[in-house]
Amino acid sequence: MSASVNSSSATVNKFLNGINDNYGGVVVQMNEPMDPQLFASLLKSSISHWRQQGKKGVWIKLPIELANLVEPAVKEGFLFHHAEPNYLMLVYWIPGGANTLPANASHRVGVGAFVMNGKREVLVVQENSGRFRGTGIWKFPTGVVDEGEDICVAAVREVKEETSIDTEFVEVLAFRQSHRSFFEKSDIFFLCMLRPLSFDIQKQESEIEAAQWMPLEEYAAQPYVQKQELLKYIVDICSAKVGTRGYHGFSPVLTTSAFSDEKHYFYLNSVDLKRQ
Amino acid sequence: MSASVNSSSATVNKFLNGINDNYGGVVVQMNEPMDPQLFASLLKSSISHWRQQGKKGVWIKLPIELANLVEPAVKEGFLFHHAEPNYLMLVYWIPGGANTLPANASHRVGVGAFVMNGKREVLVVQENSGRFRGTGIWKFPTGVVDEGEDICVAAVREVKEETSIDTEFVEVLAFRQSHRSFFEKSDIFFLCMLRPLSFDIQKQESEIEAAQWMPLEEYAAQPYVQKQELLKYIVDICSAKVGTRGYHGFSPVLTTSAFSDEKHYFYLNSVDLKRQ
Repeated sequence: MSASVNSSSATVNKFLNGINDNYGGVVVQMNEPMDPQLFASLLKSSISHWRQQGKKGVWIKLPIELANLVEPAVKEGFLFHHAEPNYLMLVYWIPGGANTLPANASHRVGVGAFVMNGKREVLVVQENSGRFRGTGIWKFPTGVVDEGEDICVAAVREVKEETSIDTEFVEVLAFRQSHRSFFEKSDIFFLCMLRPLSFDIQKQESEIEAAQWMPLEEYAAQPYVQKQELLKYIVDICSAKVGTRGYHGFSPVLTTSAFSDEKHYFYLNSVDLKRQ
Repeated sequence: MSASVNSSSATVNKFLNGINDNYGGVVVQMNEPMDPQLFASLLKSSISHWRQQGKKGVWIKLPIELANLVEPAVKEGFLFHHAEPNYLMLVYWIPGGANTLPANASHRVGVGAFVMNGKREVLVVQENSGRFRGTGIWKFPTGVVDEGEDICVAAVREVKEETSIDTEFVEVLAFRQSHRSFFEKSDIFFLCMLRPLSFDIQKQESEIEAAQWMPLEEYAAQPYVQKQELLKYIVDICSAKVGTRGYHGFSPVLTTSAFSDEKHYFYLNSVDLKRQ
């Protein structure tokens, strides 16, 4: 950028301090308090400057402490893009017309864990909050995958948190996509198989009412499971997985990129692939 | 709620108008302009009221036109939860301590389409924007799954948009999860196989530089594909899928719930399940 500004020298600078992104845009990270009128004035001149430079998307990241700058940004034509508890990201599309800005995150991701011991008993819990509270329904341990967390890591973590059982990840057996699970957001739920490495259950106090090893047949016989088409599929898949004919899900392989240091898990039917 | 308020009668009401949710919380949808000081005052008395009622999470949905109410809400202790272009959702956790509020959406979801005709040619495109612009690299059609859109629908839509080829969805062959793909958000990319129902390509003008049917071997021989571990896996999987030994991915089945009218796709290895 040709000019920079901070709270102490703001009055002598004409533009907000922005960092170029890789898509022809500019990212402004506001860290220090600023008078809203000064902010509005600098924003106006900055947009004009960036328009001349041919910039496209202008991003402003406002920490929650600077909530008083939200209104002036909106008055300059910014829209909200996304928010996390402690910041709001606003964006302005300079070229006009349909923008090519990246979409906001649209999905939450959850995991359910099928964990079976050598006696064909499956690890089940009763939750003490949410829709299953007080129902007496036994269910697989489930949980939400955190931003930045691998699905295979999240499944192991949730089982450990809820039951203290150590496990190793085996496969994704299936997944379900659902919509409007929370406000307008969608949800992907991965049914995972994990191999137990320990067997003594100590249930989590805060979220879990009870936890036990239960014969798979007993789990499957619950009226709630029998009534739900999805849960019947899950029982069929788990039974197939531990049966004689088998069932192949997707197992994770760690892949590296030739162009960065990033490693990502790729989940595929490795049994079928190895047969080739 | 025991009292309601709107812009015309705000002064005679003591509390904001909230709707109870299913988790012991209250949702306030602000639709009409309100003086920020009055809003702050009503918010204070409402929280006190809801605290006495034993309420937990308080949600305030502010349309972008009411951006002047963001600051007073934050001053009362609200945090941001999520935002879409035209609204901001704020939330306040009354009980104190660790909250059990649902997490914000954490992932974006993408699809890549493997489409092969009867001559073992695969449908490939060159993009005219983004990181592949001007590289001459041929790639499978890809795109972002919209909020509320099924993965199997998104894959068919993207192929149609980019190439005008009609297809039917066959399977998810594999998927990759990656992190920090956009700000702090994660990404899940589903490799999908689709069966072509038409064959005459008409490329999209806005995003696609070129599109063609290309022998799978020629696609695989591209130096860029050879260098990327992920792309080599994808070639191996696609080759296996159309080879003599086969490869089984996850195909979608529509499941219904016993407790709502919602239908959701469940993706599973239906070939292995049917063998049982």
